Order: sequence, then C-alpha cells, then structure tokens
Amino acid sequence: MPDSRFYHRAGPFTLMDLASRCNAALAETNMSDRVIRDISTLDAAGSDDIVYVSDASYIDAFSASKGGACITTQDCLSKMPINGCAILVAADPRLAFAQISAAFYPPADNPCSSAGDSIAPDSIIGSNVELGSGVVIGARAEIGSETRIGANAVVGPGVVLGPGCAIGANVTISHAVIGSRVAIAPGTQIGQDGFGFLPTKTGLKKVPQLGRVLIHDDVDIGANCAVDRGTLGDTIIGAGTKIDNLVQIGHNTVIGNDCVIVAHVGISGSCKIGNGVVIGGQAGLANHVVVGDGAQIAAKSGIMRDVPAGASVMGYPAKPIRQFWRDVAAVSRLTKRTN
Amino acid sequence: MPDSRFYHRAGPFTLMDLASRCNAALAETNMSDRVIRDISTLDAAGSDDIVYVSDASYIDAFSASKGGACITTQDCLSKMPINGCAILVAADPRLAFAQISAAFYPPADNPCSSAGDSIAPDSIIGSNVELGSGVVIGARAEIGSETRIGANAVVGPGVVLGPGCAIGANVTISHAVIGSRVAIAPGTQIGQDGFGFLPTKTGLKKVPQLGRVLIHDDVDIGANCAVDRGTLGDTIIGAGTKIDNLVQIGHNTVIGNDCVIVAHVGISGSCKIGNGVVIGGQAGLANHVVVGDGAQIAAKSGIMRDVPAGASVMGYPAKPIRQFWRDVAAVSRLTKRTN
Amino acid sequence: MPDSRFYHRAGPFTLMDLASRCNAALAETNMSDRVIRDISTLDAAGSDDIVYVSDASYIDAFSASKGGACITTQDCLSKMPINGCAILVAADPRLAFAQISAAFYPPADNPCSSAGDSIAPDSIIGSNVELGSGVVIGARAEIGSETRIGANAVVGPGVVLGPGCAIGANVTISHAVIGSRVAIAPGTQIGQDGFGFLPTKTGLKKVPQLGRVLIHDDVDIGANCAVDRGTLGDTIIGAGTKIDNLVQIGHNTVIGNDCVIVAHVGISGSCKIGNGVVIGGQAGLANHVVVGDGAQIAAKSGIMRDVPAGASVMGYPAKPIRQFWRDVAAVSRLTKRTN
Repeated sequence: MPDSRFYHRAGPFTLMDLASRCNAALAETNMSDRVIRDISTLDAAGSDDIVYVSDASYIDAFSASKGGACITTQDCLSKMPINGCAILVAADPRLAFAQISAAFYPPADNPCSSAGDSIAPDSIIGSNVELGSGVVIGARAEIGSETRIGANAVVGPGVVLGPGCAIGANVTISHAVIGSRVAIAPGTQIGQDGFGFLPTKTGLKKVPQLGRVLIHDDVDIGANCAVDRGTLGDTIIGAGTKIDNLVQIGHNTVIGNDCVIVAHVGISGSCKIGNGVVIGGQAGLANHVVVGDGAQIAAKSGIMRDVPAGASVMGYPAKPIRQFWRDVAAVSRLTKRTN
Repeated sequence: MPDSRFYHRAGPFTLMDLASRCNAALAETNMSDRVIRDISTLDAAGSDDIVYVSDASYIDAFSASKGGACITTQDCLSKMPINGCAILVAADPRLAFAQISAAFYPPADNPCSSAGDSIAPDSIIGSNVELGSGVVIGARAEIGSETRIGANAVVGPGVVLGPGCAIGANVTISHAVIGSRVAIAPGTQIGQDGFGFLPTKTGLKKVPQLGRVLIHDDVDIGANCAVDRGTLGDTIIGAGTKIDNLVQIGHNTVIGNDCVIVAHVGISGSCKIGNGVVIGGQAGLANHVVVGDGAQIAAKSGIMRDVPAGASVMGYPAKPIRQFWRDVAAVSRLTKRTN
Repeated sequence: MPDSRFYHRAGPFTLMDLASRCNAALAETNMSDRVIRDISTLDAAGSDDIVYVSDASYIDAFSASKGGACITTQDCLSKMPINGCAILVAADPRLAFAQISAAFYPPADNPCSSAGDSIAPDSIIGSNVELGSGVVIGARAEIGSETRIGANAVVGPGVVLGPGCAIGANVTISHAVIGSRVAIAPGTQIGQDGFGFLPTKTGLKKVPQLGRVLIHDDVDIGANCAVDRGTLGDTIIGAGTKIDNLVQIGHNTVIGNDCVIVAHVGISGSCKIGNGVVIGGQAGLANHVVVGDGAQIAAKSGIMRDVPAGASVMGYPAKPIRQFWRDVAAVSRLTKRTN
C-alpha cells in the first residue's frame, strides 16, 4: 500500500516467516503458508495484505476490512469476526506491525542522498521551469510547467510538483505529491519521518514511516515549517490553505481547505482539521484532535479535546472564548478582593 | 516606491486602466487619463503615486499625503479632504490596492531561482570575503569586505551585506539591506513573503509583498529564524539587537536597538518594539502591538495590547508581573480552600 | 580546554598581558610574568589555565580546582582559598573572562565557509558512505561507515559522525561529535553559537562560544531543530533520546538517555534533564532548570523551577498535574458562581 514512487517493497513473505520476524503466533497453524505481499491500513487492505488491530476500537473497521491477515492481541481476537482472515497473535500488535513493516520496507536509502547528477536524468521537468543554482531533483520526480525552485532546494525521488509552484531556496521535499500554484517559502521541510516510536525493552524503536504528504492547489506554506509524512496513510493539506512560518504539522494529520494557520502553531499527529478553520499563533493541538469547519482557535491555545464546527475557543485548556474572558475577569476580581 | 534593487516596476497606467483592473469606479470621470507610475504608502507618496485609505483611521495620514490618486470607500470619501487627488471608489480598498500592486509588480521571478553562475558576475564582492562551497550570490548583490558566508547559503539579487558579517550555512537572504558585523546563524530565512492574504469570494488572495528587511549593525540572529519582508514598507531590526533561535518576525514589524529576544518568540506583523526591550522565550505578540523602551516581557507571555515603556509583564493575557504572581497565588488559595 | 579539532588556540600570554586585555588588576604583582596557555572551566583546569569565579557560589568549586590563575571580584577574593593561584581582580569577571577567551580564541573563520573542494581532501570518509549532491564536508571531519548524508547538507571541519547515521538534506553540523545510528531530519542546525551576551557600556557583547555538541548513539532529531554548542563545556544529548521537529536546545544543556521531546519545545541553557524524561509539545524550560529521571512535563508547560524525578507537572507556572486540574476546576466554579 505504500506508494511505489517512494518505497521499494521486499517480499512476499509467508505468514510463518512474518510471525517469526515479530515474535507472534499463528492462531491457526494451517495458515502458515499463506503468502502476504504488503502491509495496509484496514480500509485499504486487499486479500494479500496484512493489517493490525491493537485494541477493541478498531474492531468495527476490521469487520469491514478485506485484509488477508491481521496481527492482534489474544483479547481482541475473542471479539473479532474472523471470516477467513489469517490471525497472528502478538503481545504488542503495533510493535509487531512495525517489525513486519520493516521487513517489507527495509530502511530505504536516504531519499535525498544519492550522489551523481544533481538533476536526475529520469526526472520529468516541464516547460519554463526555473531551477536555481544547486537545486537537486531526484529520480523520477516530476516538476510541472512554470514552476520555479529556489537555489539549493532539494526535491526527492518520485516527488510530484504541479505547475506554477514557487519553491523557496533551501527547501527539502520528499515523499510528497503537490498540486498547482503551491508556494513554499525558504527553509521549509516537507515529507520527513513522522515522530513515531514504540517503547520496547531495549528503548524506543522507530515505527517505519511509509506514507506521503499530499498538498492541494493554491496552498501557501511559510518559512522553516515542518510537515511530516504519514506513517502509512497520508498527511494532507487542503486547497487554498495558508500556513505561516515555523509551523509544525504531524504525521497523518488532515487539514481542510481555506484554513489560516499562524506562525509557531504545532499540530500533532492524526488530527482532523475542517475547512475554513483559523488557528492563531503558537496554538498547539494534541494528537487525534478533531476541529470542525469554521472553528476559530485563539493564539496560544492548547487544544486537548475536539472543537465543534463554528466554535471559538481560547486558553489552555481551551474554553469557549467568552468563558475564557469571564474566567480571566473572575481571577482578577479575586485578587482585588484579597489584596 | 518599492526598492528597484528588488522589484521591477511595470506601467505606467492610466487611472481608467487601474480602475478596470480592480473593479473600482472613478469619483470624477475627467481624471480617467491621469497617469500613475507607482504604488506608495501614504507618507511617502508623490503626485505620480497611488495610495489607499481603507478606513477612517487613515484619513489624517491622507490629509498630509501628496499622493496623486487614492483608492477608498464611498463612506471614507465623504470625510476626506480631496485637494486634487484622483479618487477611485472600491468596496474593499485593500483588495483593490493589492490588485493594482500586482499590476505594477507582476509576480516576480523567484528571487533565488536564477540558474547559471552561482556567483552572479555583476555581484560586487568586497575584499577578504569568504564564500563557502555552494554559496549562491544573486545579480547585483553587494557583499562587504571581511564578510564570511557559510556553505550552501543563498543571497538573493540586490541584497546588500555590510562588512564583517558572518552568515551561516544554509541561510537564505532576499530583499534585504544588512549593516556591518551582523551575524546570522545557520538555517535562518530572511526576506521571504509576509503572511498577507485577503478574503475574496474565490478564497484567500495573496497581498503582493513589495517591501524589504533592514537589519542594522551588530545584530545577531540565531538558527532557523524567519524574518519576513515588509508588505510595502520595511521590516526593521535595530542596531545591537540579539535574537535567539527559531524566532518569527512578521512583516512591517520594527524592532529597536539593543533588544534581547529569546528562542521561539513570535512577533506578528506591524509591531513596534522600542529600544532595550527583553522578550522571554516562547512569548507571542499580536499584530500592531506597541512595546515601549525598556519593557520586559516574561517567557510564554501573550501580548495582545500595548506594553508601556519600562513595564514588566507576564501571562496570557499579559499582566503586570506582580499582578500575575498575585493571581497565581490567589488561585492556589482557592483550591486549598475548596479541597 | 576547547577541543583542538574545532578551535585554534593563540597565546600563550603572560598574566600581565591578559590583565591589560580585560582591564583587570593583579592581586600580587610578582605574578605578572606567569604564563597562561589556555582558558578552562574550574573542574577541568590545570596549572597553565585561567578560570573565573564570578560570585560566591563558585568558591567551593574553586577550592577543588587546579587552575593556575583566576579572575574574580574583590569581594569574592576575600573569601577564596588562594593556594598559589594567581588572582586577577575585575569588576565583571564574566566579561573579563570573555575578553581573555577572545584573546586565546580569536573569532574563528566561519567553520563552514571555506571554499575550494566541497569534500575536504583530509576528511575521512568510511566505507559505504552516501553523500548527496552538493554535500560539503569540512577539513578533518570523520564520517562513519554506512552513514548517509542528504543533499546540500554541510558538515563542518573536525566534526565526527559515527557509523550508520542518517543526516537529512540541508542540515548543518559544526563543532559536534556524534555517535552511531543517529538520525537528523532535514533543515536541523547543530553546533552554532549559543545565545550568550554580556551587558557593557557599549551594548551587549558576545561571549565566545568555545564548546561542543555531543550526541550519543541512537538519537533521533526532527526537522528544523536548533542545538547550540556549549560555551566552554558541552551541550549533550543522551543515547536513545528522541526529539521532534522545531525544538530548541540551548548551550550547555545536558539531556539524559531515552527522553522524548515533542515539537516546539524550548530548552534554555545549562539545563540538566534526567533519563526517560517526557516533555510535551511547546513546553519551555528556563535556564539552569534540573529535571529528574522519569519526570513528565505536559505540553505547553513553563518550567521555572526544578522538577523532581518521577513528577508529572503541567501549566505556567508548572504545578503537579492534579493541582493544575484542580485549579482549572476551581476557576470554572468561580465563574459559575459569579455569573
């Protein structure tokens, strides 16, 4: 399921082989020769793919999944409708899946480290493209017509940049598919590994990051931002969204259209931001937060829970903006009284 | 009015032509052939320039302005002393002015994307300048004597760097005039577009960013900062000011001399920071805030209102620092009482 | 004492010479010909080194020090056991020491600005190293086997990179010794000057930054981070620690093993962070804070005081996490009551 433009798949592997690589047990030994060709998310899986269910919250999605094999816990297994899926039982399915992911996708060559020609001969460069001095374009990358790329910027293998883009100097882009008229200011980094680690007895182990970054048309991204690629799915920025400087966007976060995201905002992983959302400077969003369409998040707010569509919130923890100011006033009255 | 070292002006245009480009109406049709040669701020305008008045707060400045034409609203027009100025009436003068700006200054070539020589043959390089491997110097840039520029740094066309500067590796500088003995650490980005967009029926439209960054003598700027250039005027950093890593400075902000600005501070657009101001780490300043000389802003503060000279403030919203600690103590007493 | 791989020492100097360079007085004139060969911290000093004691808190460390000379104040001098150490008396020993440091270590050539070969001929490149297009490797740098360095990254003179590292595109590394299997994402800046200035009558003067960055095995650092080198000692990141994007780490800070530091965290100078510490996104730590092993610091917290081992804290100022939530609830009750 990882995009073959960015990732080279090894395998296939038999289930027995995979089980031994992640210290898992086959629920039914007669499945040991089943051939698995790829890893997948539950929703996109086919019969040659392996998926995982790490806790009961994924069981509904598993029921609808067409995956050929699944890694799960003994406890989840008792609640799951199997339907011919081959089951591997592991103490920590996320860790086991990370180990299987690493088997299918061994740590790749550094996507931007291949020496030789700075403009790969098999890259596809459109008409009227301007490439600054020192620009590096990786193998099979596609650069749309009229796109301008600033000096010393680095575009990794397989990256797609649409027409009319303006990419700043010293930008790095990897594992990304980017639309038309996207502007990225100097020093921004797109598509690096997300921040995914699992605790093990020998320390934190990196979860292979095998997804992409998708940036739709007319997006603006400021200077020195960081947009991590997805773990298995994609990090997505919707059309027309405007992002200021020094903004962090975590892996698998999905941002809607026409949002405004001010400098130093930090959006953690797997957030879902609706359309037309405004996020003030230095605000932070915890993992998995959902923000509804048209919500407004004041500067410096800390968002730990979902924000409904149309809401205006402020503070840490964030509250409706009127409540925030009432609380501020109440605390001030308190000290007037006590002093 | 934009600096011809950085921007190439088109035109001139007749008023009628400009009116049609921004969907505005001439207040007096006999002005339709007046020739306009440039855009300008109110204070710097001459008789060939066009300016704008988007709300009544600009009318005083308009009265003192020598601009030959002005875009404004029907409502403002009724309160403005015209004095021979040609008036265009538009529903949104800021948007109309942005459209006229784009007519005079069509989206430029990416300032750092010109291929060919990495050191432009018409750049002026002083004595004893050190240029690292991979450095790119744009057309007509001037590098002062004894200045050292780290590997893979990019200096855009027309940029002026004074003598004795130390520019780190992987820095990008465009649209900037920089004084003597300025140190800029690696990865910092200077002079990119500010974060200026206007809402329209077809989404957010970029306001052309046609100003500069001016950095005075003996300024230090840390690593991975972002300093946006002005929209029409300049973003300015005063002499002797010291800026830590990962700091954001928005367009048209003016910072005084001998300030200390700690890491992760975010300063929005059009702020005015006095001399000798200290801003602690991760503090944030909203647009248009004025901070007086010698003020001290504690780390993590959120500044939404002006800070008087000499004041010490803390918190979000920021309060006088004693009040902040009194409020903290009062809240603690509250929970002691209730538990 | 500064590492000769990164710094070139001038001198030696007589005490009289040094005294004149920093406007200090010799306590005993018969010491004026004593030869001093280097600067040092108190704990590492030998008989040819000069140290400083700026206030009484350093007197115990001075008692155990073997330094041959010391700059201090008249006031401290009266409390110090001299034991044959030559004493210079200055109004501001830190400023005097900075001036002496600059005498021994004149502002170096920009470590990454030497032109000529992009891969220095006297660098040592291990087997199976991959160097991207435009990579710059400084004089005497050592790159371990199997290490991959992304395009346009810059590795300064004398830097040591262990085997199996993955360095992203557009990274800059100077004044650093880095272990095995360290991953650094694109755009991160390692080893630049720390933020050290002293007030003088003619403005803020830079304190020479003459230390290093030490990064131990299996560390991961995200994109667009900044890790400053030590002033005289080292900035250290312990084995297995994982750092997200846009994180700031100040000079002389020491971070333990297996920590998790989330995006936009700002750690000031001279902090000591234990092992297994977790710091949530956008948290900030003031200078000299000590955080015990296993402590957990919630996102957005502001840490102004030491955090005990095992503690969980939140807020600004940070409190035990239960207290934080109790206070939040108390304030909410307050407005319910008052409205």
